[in-house]
This record gives sequence, structure tokens and C-alpha cells, in this order.
Amino acid sequence: MASFRFRCSECGEHYAEDEVDLLCPVCAGMQEPGCSTRGVLEVELNSLPTAWPAAPMSSPEALVDFLPLDSPARWPPLAVGGTPLLAVERLRQHLNAPDLWIKDDTRNPSGSTKDRASALVVAKAVEYGHDTIAAASTGNAATALAASAAASGVRAVLFVPANAPQAKLVQMLAYGAEVLPVDGTYDQAFDLCIEACERFGWYNRNTALNPFTIEGKKTAALEIAAAMAPQCPDTVLVPVGDGVILAGIAKGFTDLRRAGLVSRVPRLIAVQPEGSAALVNAIIAGDDDIHAVPDATSVADSLVVQAPRNGRLCLRQIRDSSGSAVAVSDEAILTAIGDLARMTGVFAEPAAAAGLAGLRASLENGLVDPTERIVLMVTGTGLKDVPAAGRAVDRPVPIEATLAAVQARVQGDNDR
Amino acid sequence: MASFRFRCSECGEHYAEDEVDLLCPVCAGMQEPGCSTRGVLEVELNSLPTAWPAAPMSSPEALVDFLPLDSPARWPPLAVGGTPLLAVERLRQHLNAPDLWIKDDTRNPSGSTKDRASALVVAKAVEYGHDTIAAASTGNAATALAASAAASGVRAVLFVPANAPQAKLVQMLAYGAEVLPVDGTYDQAFDLCIEACERFGWYNRNTALNPFTIEGKKTAALEIAAAMAPQCPDTVLVPVGDGVILAGIAKGFTDLRRAGLVSRVPRLIAVQPEGSAALVNAIIAGDDDIHAVPDATSVADSLVVQAPRNGRLCLRQIRDSSGSAVAVSDEAILTAIGDLARMTGVFAEPAAAAGLAGLRASLENGLVDPTERIVLMVTGTGLKDVPAAGRAVDRPVPIEATLAAVQARVQGDNDR
Repeated sequence: MASFRFRCSECGEHYAEDEVDLLCPVCAGMQEPGCSTRGVLEVELNSLPTAWPAAPMSSPEALVDFLPLDSPARWPPLAVGGTPLLAVERLRQHLNAPDLWIKDDTRNPSGSTKDRASALVVAKAVEYGHDTIAAASTGNAATALAASAAASGVRAVLFVPANAPQAKLVQMLAYGAEVLPVDGTYDQAFDLCIEACERFGWYNRNTALNPFTIEGKKTAALEIAAAMAPQCPDTVLVPVGDGVILAGIAKGFTDLRRAGLVSRVPRLIAVQPEGSAALVNAIIAGDDDIHAVPDATSVADSLVVQAPRNGRLCLRQIRDSSGSAVAVSDEAILTAIGDLARMTGVFAEPAAAAGLAGLRASLENGLVDPTERIVLMVTGTGLKDVPAAGRAVDRPVPIEATLAAVQARVQGDNDR
Repeated sequence: MASFRFRCSECGEHYAEDEVDLLCPVCAGMQEPGCSTRGVLEVELNSLPTAWPAAPMSSPEALVDFLPLDSPARWPPLAVGGTPLLAVERLRQHLNAPDLWIKDDTRNPSGSTKDRASALVVAKAVEYGHDTIAAASTGNAATALAASAAASGVRAVLFVPANAPQAKLVQMLAYGAEVLPVDGTYDQAFDLCIEACERFGWYNRNTALNPFTIEGKKTAALEIAAAMAPQCPDTVLVPVGDGVILAGIAKGFTDLRRAGLVSRVPRLIAVQPEGSAALVNAIIAGDDDIHAVPDATSVADSLVVQAPRNGRLCLRQIRDSSGSAVAVSDEAILTAIGDLARMTGVFAEPAAAAGLAGLRASLENGLVDPTERIVLMVTGTGLKDVPAAGRAVDRPVPIEATLAAVQARVQGDNDR
């Protein structure tokens, strides 16, 4: 069992596990409207392993020494993580980037990286004796909570904007979650979830607020590092909505550097859609806080936020890693869905394909050198948003069931 | 490298690899209209390993000794297989079946077990020097071929009925396959694909026809057996459409028994929808061939066939294993989607949830004893068919963004 303290990412104050709940009690009082959350807590483990585990890094037996878990038995029995790190030869050739890798997190249980956060939150809720976990989400985070809660037999109450995509809604309902579609915005659902948790004593999984969301997502970094050891990536590109996946990647490599298992934290490059680029704007302007983008919009629904809730911590982590941030157009994201699928066999939702669009932009403007050891985080399956993928492909018209019709259709291709 | 011969599943004749293409040339001439395919070839490896591999069973390094592969480098670089075998504690308690396991094949690259077949077919096509592979499919098989072909850089031409589900169509198009929607039935698309392969020299991946489809799917059995060793399942339940997944499971355990790595082939229980139950009918009637069900229909679109193309071989394999077959209603399948997701966190398409419906029926009628070591094959993700899952859940009506509205909605549950 790995014992730990919380450390405020803002003021550096330490707290014992039972002293605080979600945010730093000092910094939590200093929130500014329209800005990112202040006082996000990070987990600081009192000791870390000094050698790579013998068991696979994604197994509860290995994770228990790297996470604030009191027992491997708490980890939801759903095989979260353990996703492949793919050597994508055809995409490497296409981009002339010979050391490019894809962390294919589309292959998590509910289809996204969010399963990593939810697994740890569910494990902690069970340890704390909660029988209900609540979350506000536009999709993947709520779905992931529903899946891990189902596997562990915990009740999940999900606050979702009433206009959330149908596929994600059906999936969370199938997992047996109690879904409360809220007539209002994501922000209203988020605040209502906080109120309800206080009123009913539910455990709150809201992203960025709950410190175990970052800590759970760090398992992606642990797996990447273990698979590459003794090498380490130079650069990791991460799509950013609220910025918790990026924070988890940073936390994972930081812990491994403390443990002496990797030599450095890779350069972290945040990728945001042009229409939802609050973090990119702050990086370019050199600001320490985020200015909200009131009418944020993108085809990558999972990345649309006015101000990333975990933006302040992300800014520090990106700068500490000598990283950066790039904005990509919706058109580039849709193109990346097709390029990624065609050249690797990985079918990604728009938010997940954004990383490849960001890599292209970073190679073009010289931010990334093509010879670096690069990892792209692909964070969610394309089956989550088929209508968006439908915009990325041309639909062929039907043919008669005759060989002549086949011949006419494929003639050009076949004679190449 | 594992050398091999083909063996006709019908007449037992052996052929060298370069002697035949798809079916046994003798038995292929004896097809009867409306019946299953005669003369399906099985791969007979000339030698098999006598110990479990040191590498993970799903790795190309391990597979090369168990499959007709000339090099691990042929295996598509997509991490096919390697899916979890889940100890589903909550479902065990619910069914009072303490040794129940789920092979969660929803976590394959394109979301279904079909990736296993396509990976081997693509590997063999590359070995044989084909630059184009064609297949006729209503969905998952074509999608899987598109994914493995994309990863390996081979052209895929897919014949699909023009009315195929949109999600599956979009996914295969995203992978860059050339999709030919055929104005006609699946059977017309199937025959057209055969003609086109002969005319254009393409490699034919049609299910049951291509012997490597069965052989590729046997990797699921290899993984189950390796994970359970030295134990072995008593019973495996497999949803059946054309019957190639069941044939692959049978082949895998048969090979392992030959190798001395398992003591027996588990009892195989085929599960079919009541509206598409040609194989079940033959098992009950004691027939050696299948009689077509002309108006076959089910919510489980992946299982709808008039006569399973691999039915004759399946019948023999089921009987050799002392197995059986059960039919389940569409209602039971939809219920199983919700039960499976709620109690395990595994979200399955109707065809994949059919296995659980079949287990319920088998426990009720005494075909399976609840104390057996049971494995359910869950063969495809629920994200493949969200509309069907939508029929399995109740949609909640929206609430106002107030605590009072939350309280009113959850009152009953929360006061429990």
C-alpha cells in the first residue's frame, strides 16, 4: 500500500488524506469567475518503487505501489488501461517521423482514457465507504464512471447537459447509472453536482476537482514509460479539454523521475481546437491564468470548454516540461480522423484525432523535430461519435450486383 | 515458423499450402443450395509447441509457433487480441455461478472478435504477395479487414449490402477501404465478391470460405487457455452467425490438446437468436446438415443468416465436444445487454450479449451446471449498434438545474 499526502498545486501546502476533501481549503476560496479552478490537489506518495514491477504495469498488483490504493482488490475488475503502445510504421513514413508512437487508449473498457480516472475514483470511494459517486460530464467521463461503478457495484449518479450526444447517453444508461439530464449548460450541471454531493453525502468525481482523476490518468504515463524503458519519450502530444489527461501524464512522468525510473519528464504539447483554445492563448501570451473563451465550439465535443478547469496546473506543467501548446482547425481534426485510421488502423473520435492534427502543425512550425521520440495520446474511440467521422469520409453510391458494375467502379484503382 | 497442410473438414483429404486456394476442390463441387458450405479447409500445423510461450500469448512472437505464419513480422502492427478474461464477481453472484468468466473481445482494435480472423488473413495475403484483399460482409468482418489492412498497408475492397448499418459503414470508410455497397442481399454481395476475386486476382477473405478466418479466431481460445492454465474451461458459450468464431474456439482447444497443453476441448454451446436458429434446429433434430431459415431476422444483426456458412463443421465440432445449442429471443438479448453492462461494465452489441442470454437459458434448462467453469465469449462492442442498446434502456426526462429537482428525482433511490 502506498501512503500519501495531498499537496496543493497552487500554494504548495500539504494535507493529510483525511484533512481535506476536494480542493485546497485556502486556495479554493480564491476562485475567479471564468477562470480555471484554483487549489487543485495533487497526490504526493510517501514512497515510490525504485524498480519496474515484475507484473504488467496495468495490473492492480503493480499499480498498488504507484497509486494511492490501500489494496489491489479495490481496483475495479474491468482491466482498465493496459492499452497498446503502437509502432506506427506507415504513419512514421508518411510524416517522416521514424520514432513516432501511438498510445491507443481507444481500447479502454468504455472506449476512452477517462476509464483510468474513474477506476481510481471508484477504488477510493469504495475504500472511503461511499455507496454513491456523482459526476457532471458531457460524455466520456460520465460514461467511464458508469462502467467502473458497474464493475465494482457502486451507484453512479450522472449530471449531463440535456443535449449530450445520444450514443454517450445510451452507453451510460446501459451501465445502469442514474442519469439526470439537466436543462442547462455543462457549467450548471457541474455546479449542481457539487451541491448534490454536499446535500446527499455522495462522493464527487468531477474532473479536476477530484484529485484522483489526475492521479488515475497518470497510469497512461506509467504504461508508456514501462513499455519504452530504458528509453523515454522526448515529446508527448495530448489533446486538452479540461486538461486532466495532460496533468496525469505530467504527474506520471514526474513520479517516475522522482523514483529514478526515468531520466526526465518529456516535453508536453497541449493540443486544442481553434474554437476552444483558452490554454493555447495563455501559453502564447505568457499568462499565469486562463481567460475564458465564452463561445467555445468545435467538432471535438470532448474538448470544448470555456476555460479548462485544470488550466492553471496545466500551464505550470507544460512550462516545467519546456513544452508548448498548439491550436488546430476543425477541418484539420476531421482530416486527422481519416489519416489516423487509414495509416494505423486506429479509429479515433475527433478529440482523440486532434493529437495527430497537433503533431502535423508542430512539425510544420518547427515546434517538434521529426527525429524526436514522439508519443501521441489517442484518447477515445471513433465509435463514440460516428456522425463526426461521417463528415470525414465520402459515402460511395451503391452499385448493381454485377461484375461489370464492380469493374466500372474499381477500374481506375485497379489499373494503377 | 509453423509449417502446415490443409485438411478438408468434410472428406479428410490433405492438401499442401500451394495446392488449393479456399475450399476442398473435391467437396466444393457438392454444394447444395440453401445449405452450409461443404469442404471448408482447416489448417493442420505440422508441429505445435509443447510448452506455453514465455511471451504473452497475443504477441506475434508467441503466435508464430501456433499459427501458419512464416514470420512474426507479418502480423498486422495493431495489437489484435490480448483482450481481458474477466472474473465477473457481480454477475457470478447474480447467476450463482461462482466460476464464470468473460472473454471481453469488445476490446479488439475495431471492436470485435473479427479482428482476429482479419489479422491472419492480412498476414497471409502479404506473404502471398497480394496487394488487394476483398470480403463480403454485413459489418464487423469487413470493418475488421479494413482495420488490419490499414495497419499493414494493403488495399481492402469490401462488398456490403447497401442497407448495412451506418456506423459500421462509416468505420470501414474511415479506415480507407474501398466500399462497394451492393444493391442486393448479403448472399448476392458474397457471390459477387467471389467472382470479383477470380476476375481481378484479389485475395478473398470471405468468412468460412477462407480457411485462415477460422485459424485466426482460434487465438481467442489460445488466450483463454493460457490465462487459465493449468485449469481449463468446462464450457464455452459462443454466439453463432456463420459459425466461424465457434469453429475457431474449437480449433484452438483442439490444437492445444494435441500439443498436450490442455487436457480437453471444453463443451461448446452455440447461441443463436430464435429468429435465426438454423444451427439450433439441426442440433435438436440430429441432422448432419443445416436447413435454411429463409426469413431469418433478429435484433442481433451480426447473427442473422439463413444457413450458417460454416454450419456443417460447427455441427461436428459441437457434437465432438459433447456440446449443444440454444436459441434466445430478441427480448432476452436486449435484457442481456443491460444485465451484462450493469453487472460487469462490459457494453456489448446484441450479438455479443446473446451469449449471456444463452447462459441464462442453459442454466434454466439444466444444460449447464452453475458450478462449472464457464466462459462467455463477448464478441463485439455495444458502440457498434447504439440504436439497439437504446431499446434496452429507459431514457430519463430532463430536470431543472435545481437541488429540489435532483431531490425529487433521486428521493426513492436515496432513501433506500
